[in-house]
Amino acid sequence: MKILLIGASGTIGQAIDRELSQRHQVVRIGRNSGELRVDIRDTDSIRALFEQTGGFDALVSAAGAVHFGALEEMSAAQYAIGLEDKLMGQVNLLLIGRDYANDGASFTLTSGILSEDPIRYGSSASMVNGALDSFVRSAAIELPRGLRVNAVSPTVLVESMDNFAPYFRGFKPVPGAEVALAYAKSVEGAQTGQVYRVL
Amino acid sequence: MKILLIGASGTIGQAIDRELSQRHQVVRIGRNSGELRVDIRDTDSIRALFEQTGGFDALVSAAGAVHFGALEEMSAAQYAIGLEDKLMGQVNLLLIGRDYANDGASFTLTSGILSEDPIRYGSSASMVNGALDSFVRSAAIELPRGLRVNAVSPTVLVESMDNFAPYFRGFKPVPGAEVALAYAKSVEGAQTGQVYRVL
Ligand SMILES: NC(=O)c1ccc[n+]([C@@H]2O[C@H](COP(=O)([O-])OP(=O)(O)OC[C@H]3O[C@@H](n4cnc5c(N)ncnc54)[C@H](OP(=O)(O)O)[C@@H]3O)[C@@H](O)[C@H]2O)c1
Ligand SMILES: NC(=O)c1ccc[n+]([C@@H]2O[C@H](COP(=O)([O-])OP(=O)(O)OC[C@H]3O[C@@H](n4cnc5c(N)ncnc54)[C@H](OP(=O)(O)O)[C@@H]3O)[C@@H](O)[C@H]2O)c1
Repeated sequence: MKILLIGASGTIGQAIDRELSQRHQVVRIGRNSGELRVDIRDTDSIRALFEQTGGFDALVSAAGAVHFGALEEMSAAQYAIGLEDKLMGQVNLLLIGRDYANDGASFTLTSGILSEDPIRYGSSASMVNGALDSFVRSAAIELPRGLRVNAVSPTVLVESMDNFAPYFRGFKPVPGAEVALAYAKSVEGAQTGQVYRVL
Repeated sequence: MKILLIGASGTIGQAIDRELSQRHQVVRIGRNSGELRVDIRDTDSIRALFEQTGGFDALVSAAGAVHFGALEEMSAAQYAIGLEDKLMGQVNLLLIGRDYANDGASFTLTSGILSEDPIRYGSSASMVNGALDSFVRSAAIELPRGLRVNAVSPTVLVESMDNFAPYFRGFKPVPGAEVALAYAKSVEGAQTGQVYRVL
């Protein structure tokens, strides 16, 4: 398969790359790194990306930022960051990419466990992850040509604990290699509209 | 209790009004109707509302629009309608209203069952409802002064089937009076961070 991997240089992206490049052609894409570049906040940039990639069999996104901050300090502007980047950035990869996707291609987006298991400072992440999980369930039933869409919702990664540990006390971190399996299930399996939790 | 009811003239709002006005002072608020007016898409309008209401013991929102349309025809602009109105409109009622709320006051927002049980044309509603449910779970753990926040997630109402039946075939509609009970549980109970499904 020809697989477009958005966020290939990231903590999760690298793990996905190691898993999928064993069996498939992985095109590594990032904002400031990778064979191809895209800013998922910008629909023109997304369109330009697909003009370069042409057809593909799978798109995997492990990109997208949200603002972390105390609820006390959060206003509409801080929530807009996550809505435009991690939420609509990934949704736009599907909305624009569907026209370039080969029949039966899959889209795999990344949400995260904060949708159901919240932490302090995480209300934007929770909002965006919940939106992604429900979007995926719904979009799946309307996609044409056997196109599929799933989400992977990981807990915090072992590899991210250096930075995140103070915010995720009591969470059992999972190795990136295990998280990557959920992306393989989405890409190489046949299900659609699923949210694969990795806990 | 002094209860601010946003969307009081609506199908759900009227049912909430009938339930809560038996025991409480309900201030009826709408965009084009009601004792007080607000456009929840506009943060200045929300701030002006709270300057008029002063302190309150509960805010209940049964307002908020999303765009319904075939996934095929949905683009970022159509999703933005729901993100700005039903999602951030209700979130801003909390973010701005918290400064005016009495100690221990509750916020009750409205999402809907499409987050988990999707229909054709409903991908924006699914996205927004999932975002609201997860936001509520997360915001609840950071609210000060005993403030609470819950969501009510109803299936389609009996009273709405004249308009919605073709889109909700096979769904068992619930009477508005039953949906209103979930709002009473949120307002008059003591839980926080809950999503009350009404099926
Ligand atoms: N790490 C965790 O423990 C964890 C757990 C659950 C969920 N998640 C979610 O998983 C996603 C990835 O997390 P991560 O920790 O792997 O992130 P990361 O290490 O910071 O990597 C982010 C990757 O995404 C790319 N990227 C960032 N913004 C972009 C944009 N606007 N357009 C295109 N590419 C962009 C970056 O490219 P460049 O390097 O080229 O700029 C990089 O490849 C995030 O949404 C995060 O919320 C992470
Ligand atoms: N009806 C159902 O079966 C059902 C099921 C599940 C979820 N829901 C959700 O519940 C919410 C209410 O549904 P409904 O059927 O009761 O709606 P509705 O009958 O159309 O009533 C909407 C109410 O909200 C007010 N409103 C609309 N936009 C507003 C804005 N921008 N600012 C302030 N107020 C605004 C309206 O005020 P004015 O009349 O003064 O303009 C009206 O009081 C919606 O978010 C809907 O998605 C509905």
